[in-house]
Amino acid sequence: MSLILTSITINTPHLQDMLSFYKLVGFEFKGIKVDKGSEVYRALHGGVEFSLYSITNPQRSTIPSLQLGFNITDLEKTVAGLVQIPGAMCILDPTDMPDGKKAIVLDPDGHSIELCQR
Amino acid sequence: MSLILTSITINTPHLQDMLSFYKLVGFEFKGIKVDKGSEVYRALHGGVEFSLYSITNPQRSTIPSLQLGFNITDLEKTVAGLVQIPGAMCILDPTDMPDGKKAIVLDPDGHSIELCQR
Repeated sequence: MSLILTSITINTPHLQDMLSFYKLVGFEFKGIKVDKGSEVYRALHGGVEFSLYSITNPQRSTIPSLQLGFNITDLEKTVAGLVQIPGAMCILDPTDMPDGKKAIVLDPDGHSIELCQR
Repeated sequence: MSLILTSITINTPHLQDMLSFYKLVGFEFKGIKVDKGSEVYRALHGGVEFSLYSITNPQRSTIPSLQLGFNITDLEKTVAGLVQIPGAMCILDPTDMPDGKKAIVLDPDGHSIELCQR
């Protein structure tokens, strides 16, 4: 069986902060019109569609159910920008590891995002 | 800036059911030893590491924060198998769309998984 991941969608109660966060990570978003009054922003990278969908839901799980990892360039500068975004928090400063420099930042919804510069 | 998605990790309180679900979707998992008593299962597809990590957390959000989309082969048979897994639920039966046959199934944690056969 062949299997291809085509899309990742995160429903978020903090759309603007999440947009700021993932733009800094490197996504280039386009706003999509949806007819229900919701807002969706979508980015396409490497064949995978990454979407942020606005929801009104104040709950924030204490243990986020999702973690994502990205290889990026310019780790130090990216992390310095990310931690300025409301709700974002660095839990591992950029650190040299055997396979590259790594950092872990919580996004405004509390998802753990591992960033690596090889 | 270059950006490469490298990993997706879902923390789940229903590890065995989630494993059954994503194996049927097409992932080939390997168990990974972790020293904290937790269980992790990992699959590598198209350069993206997909992991299921066992947590003990009874809460199940009413609005899942994550949705994933996959292109697969043999949609009908896959969906028929998925709905047999405890906690999984089909919310759109396989339906012919302009861009392929689609179905939507909730995984045992309530994430909405869109499956498409082109």
